[in-house]
Amino acid sequence: MITPSIIHGGDLDRARAAFPDAPEPWVDLSTGINPWPYPLPDIPADAWTRLPARSAEAGLRAAAAGCYGVASPDMVAAASGSQALIQLLPRLRRAGTVAVLGPTYAEHAAAWAAAGHRVAAVASLDGLETDVIVIVNPNNPDGRIVPVDRLLELADRQAGRGGWLVVDEAFADVTPAASVSPHAGRPGLLVLRSFGKFFGLAGLRLGILLAEPALAGTVRAAIGPWAVSGPGLAVATAALADSAWIAAMRVRLAAEAERLDGRLTAAGLSVVGGTSLFRLICTPCAPELYNALGRAGVIVRRFDYRTDWLRLGLPKDEKSTTRLLDACRTIKNS
Amino acid sequence: MITPSIIHGGDLDRARAAFPDAPEPWVDLSTGINPWPYPLPDIPADAWTRLPARSAEAGLRAAAAGCYGVASPDMVAAASGSQALIQLLPRLRRAGTVAVLGPTYAEHAAAWAAAGHRVAAVASLDGLETDVIVIVNPNNPDGRIVPVDRLLELADRQAGRGGWLVVDEAFADVTPAASVSPHAGRPGLLVLRSFGKFFGLAGLRLGILLAEPALAGTVRAAIGPWAVSGPGLAVATAALADSAWIAAMRVRLAAEAERLDGRLTAAGLSVVGGTSLFRLICTPCAPELYNALGRAGVIVRRFDYRTDWLRLGLPKDEKSTTRLLDACRTIKNS
Repeated sequence: MITPSIIHGGDLDRARAAFPDAPEPWVDLSTGINPWPYPLPDIPADAWTRLPARSAEAGLRAAAAGCYGVASPDMVAAASGSQALIQLLPRLRRAGTVAVLGPTYAEHAAAWAAAGHRVAAVASLDGLETDVIVIVNPNNPDGRIVPVDRLLELADRQAGRGGWLVVDEAFADVTPAASVSPHAGRPGLLVLRSFGKFFGLAGLRLGILLAEPALAGTVRAAIGPWAVSGPGLAVATAALADSAWIAAMRVRLAAEAERLDGRLTAAGLSVVGGTSLFRLICTPCAPELYNALGRAGVIVRRFDYRTDWLRLGLPKDEKSTTRLLDACRTIKNS
Repeated sequence: MITPSIIHGGDLDRARAAFPDAPEPWVDLSTGINPWPYPLPDIPADAWTRLPARSAEAGLRAAAAGCYGVASPDMVAAASGSQALIQLLPRLRRAGTVAVLGPTYAEHAAAWAAAGHRVAAVASLDGLETDVIVIVNPNNPDGRIVPVDRLLELADRQAGRGGWLVVDEAFADVTPAASVSPHAGRPGLLVLRSFGKFFGLAGLRLGILLAEPALAGTVRAAIGPWAVSGPGLAVATAALADSAWIAAMRVRLAAEAERLDGRLTAAGLSVVGGTSLFRLICTPCAPELYNALGRAGVIVRRFDYRTDWLRLGLPKDEKSTTRLLDACRTIKNS
């Protein structure tokens, strides 16, 4: 849910209100959304006019299974954004105990708590005895990666007690070797994938759950028919099957992230984590830098629990990068 | 949920499988979706690439409030299709008793039952003592209308006992005088509106709930942020505010429905109900007619509980109408 206590990236409305004199258009670096989106294919008119056909959703699930390396479309459920899955999962279990490896994306803890579960943020995975464990992997915002072996061991342990391990792989497209998606058939393991971030189409609203077939079927039944728009199905089915674009984009994002790191470091900033889709910097001047960036029309992500952190998405072009770095230098030199 | 026991309109995949020799393209009259859709406006690129802004969702809610005659956008919640709201509402109350005025759209009873409620289909509204009453108004498929006064009296009674009256106005755009939407601020009253049917854009996936502000807020929180796609928000906000198009389309649909009735009657068929978006015919030959239509590449909606009924959407052009009527005549003359 949107609550005053959960800040999200991408909220240009709020940035404009906070910095009314900033130059337009804004440079939005507050999310981890790829700034080089998958090119929209032609969308047939009846994707808009007709109810999405079963075959269209089946095609999407098959493309997702191929892209994410799971054995069968039966292990795939599609929803209108991974946020919709985050809202739904807590309602599919009776109230119990939940551990969220944190700090991380705040909506997980909020959704489980809102559904009546007892939620604890934990800093370590050792000795957990909760019904549900939630791990964002790679983590947002610091990019921390829990190794696949460790995740599978946790999943098996959770399955043995009738529990769940929920792995949110919203940013895993850029680190496929760290993904447990190909193991999603294991009992107890639920994997969430976000279409919009890596493919740069966050407005399309598509989130994917991967799990063993019976559980994926339960989730599909709870979501109900026609949850994803016809245009969304058409675009995403093409994108998920486009392995050449995916491979090239992984290379490009890694190179762009490395280049950004070099320039941030040259500007005197420390990059302490992230993924190829966003970088995390740590500086005692973070609050001043946030404001300087805001005045320059650059929005980045700050964190109330770590006021020395700022998260930056990749600038889409040299002009955006320059505006970012110029504002960084004003702080360094002040 | 899609279960083998719930048949839906719009399932061309199934029609093609059942009638493999039928001519393409099919004439799909199996839904109540307007065949003359709202013309798609230009969609800005960032509706696809960015997370939908709060201001975009607020604009949609304001347009919906205006279109449906409710006092405030605070009384509006938007989801990815009214089906998503049908899936959600049963999870927002503890398990109780539910009466569904039937026969009607089957997903209501299925969703309440799946969430653990005790559901009864009722043929009359007299003396109901259930926690929740669900009425599709105008009803699908027969077009039966429960008067506004009666609905408001029921809503007040439900509110007095902490219950809900859920009025599904999926087809009410064509009968605005029969709508309780302007009264949606009343405690106990929840109104569902479907964007895709009247505006002919069922693939866009937008459903609207209207209720008093606290309850609408609870529903918004349960839906979570970014549930409706960016392109969907852009198109629907324009459409819901286009009162000239809406008024003209009401007139056109009424005229087209009347014209269709005349031609069906002339072909020897009895029209026994419906709305301007679909017509219901009753004939002992319905099963044979369904098959004759299928062989001719025309899909209509049949009902397992009334095998003498067929529901027909409006044909979009003279060619489609001719194909429908020609197939009707083969039955009449056989």
